[in-house]
Amino acid sequence: MSIISKQTLLRMPYYLEHLKEMHKNGETVVSAPILAQHFGYTEIQVRKDLASVSSVQGKPKIGFNISTLIVDIENVLGYQHLNKAVLVGCGSLGHAFLGYKVFSEYGCEIIAGFDANPEKLGSFGDKPILGMNTLKEFCNKEAINMGIITVPAIAAQRVCDQLVDAGVKAIWNFAPIHLIVPDGILVQNENMAASLAMLFNHLNALK
Amino acid sequence: MSIISKQTLLRMPYYLEHLKEMHKNGETVVSAPILAQHFGYTEIQVRKDLASVSSVQGKPKIGFNISTLIVDIENVLGYQHLNKAVLVGCGSLGHAFLGYKVFSEYGCEIIAGFDANPEKLGSFGDKPILGMNTLKEFCNKEAINMGIITVPAIAAQRVCDQLVDAGVKAIWNFAPIHLIVPDGILVQNENMAASLAMLFNHLNALK
Repeated sequence: MSIISKQTLLRMPYYLEHLKEMHKNGETVVSAPILAQHFGYTEIQVRKDLASVSSVQGKPKIGFNISTLIVDIENVLGYQHLNKAVLVGCGSLGHAFLGYKVFSEYGCEIIAGFDANPEKLGSFGDKPILGMNTLKEFCNKEAINMGIITVPAIAAQRVCDQLVDAGVKAIWNFAPIHLIVPDGILVQNENMAASLAMLFNHLNALK
Repeated sequence: MSIISKQTLLRMPYYLEHLKEMHKNGETVVSAPILAQHFGYTEIQVRKDLASVSSVQGKPKIGFNISTLIVDIENVLGYQHLNKAVLVGCGSLGHAFLGYKVFSEYGCEIIAGFDANPEKLGSFGDKPILGMNTLKEFCNKEAINMGIITVPAIAAQRVCDQLVDAGVKAIWNFAPIHLIVPDGILVQNENMAASLAMLFNHLNALK
């Protein structure tokens, strides 16, 4: 197993979903050409991708064992155990994420929401919504190393600083703002405005 | 103004947010070095980016007019008018998006939700939730060319086909599945599982 590039990692959830679907349909092996055709990748790409996550070689003319690949990909994606996270910003998007069960399938369990607005405190579904003044203590006690930012852009850097101060090492940022963090902290930006811009650009080109 | 690359386009929402913030603070001009420092880009990168969206040159030793840049970037991002869209899949994420006012700031107005489950039909906030059997007629009548998919992976290809059949040309896909579409249709994937995988990978590397 070699070091996995970001681009390879980004393709893994798609392989996983497709392999699970095949598994559900009773299939046990899959060949690189079949995966390549399905995804529109080259065979070489598929073989490289699978080699980077799995030590099991595909058998010539037979292919890869689907169950083994599923386990290997889930391991690479960090799904073998739930990673606890806190979410800051309990507006409509924050609420959605607190109630979004799919994240736990992706290995992420949001165990609490935080908000600066006292009116939002209490709970949402089975998740507590706590005040920002308790963030650091909560993260330390629960050994939280991941934070999700769903506050407006203007508040995001401050929240980011608070998360870093609370010991968080990985930040999933939904605010359309460039966050400044110390070395060793990873920010993964979910730039919805940019995605929409890509779509609009395509539509405008059709006009 | 030259053709804009995807990578340049992806940076634009960050420039926009920052320029709006500066504008709000009463600033009128900004220099490339200042933007470069803020975002951690090179000056050359910033100058290229701004040249690709704006025909206005920065003045030596003074900089770029912030208001002009804001208008230019908003035009490039397609914010000059609201682009109507439909959303299919009214679970927790779908509900969040129907109620998420920020999308309209990004130029996207979701005018209706659709769901295959009769129990979900009716409305959410001020948005109607309609049955899938009315999708094509609705999209034709309202001249919809953009669809958002928030159904589970297993249902996503079918929904995608229905959107394409209804005349949609741009699809924003939140299901972790590779969608197959005819030529001329753009799919923008929002791969949350992959984003989480990036974060977990970083955390595992710290252990």
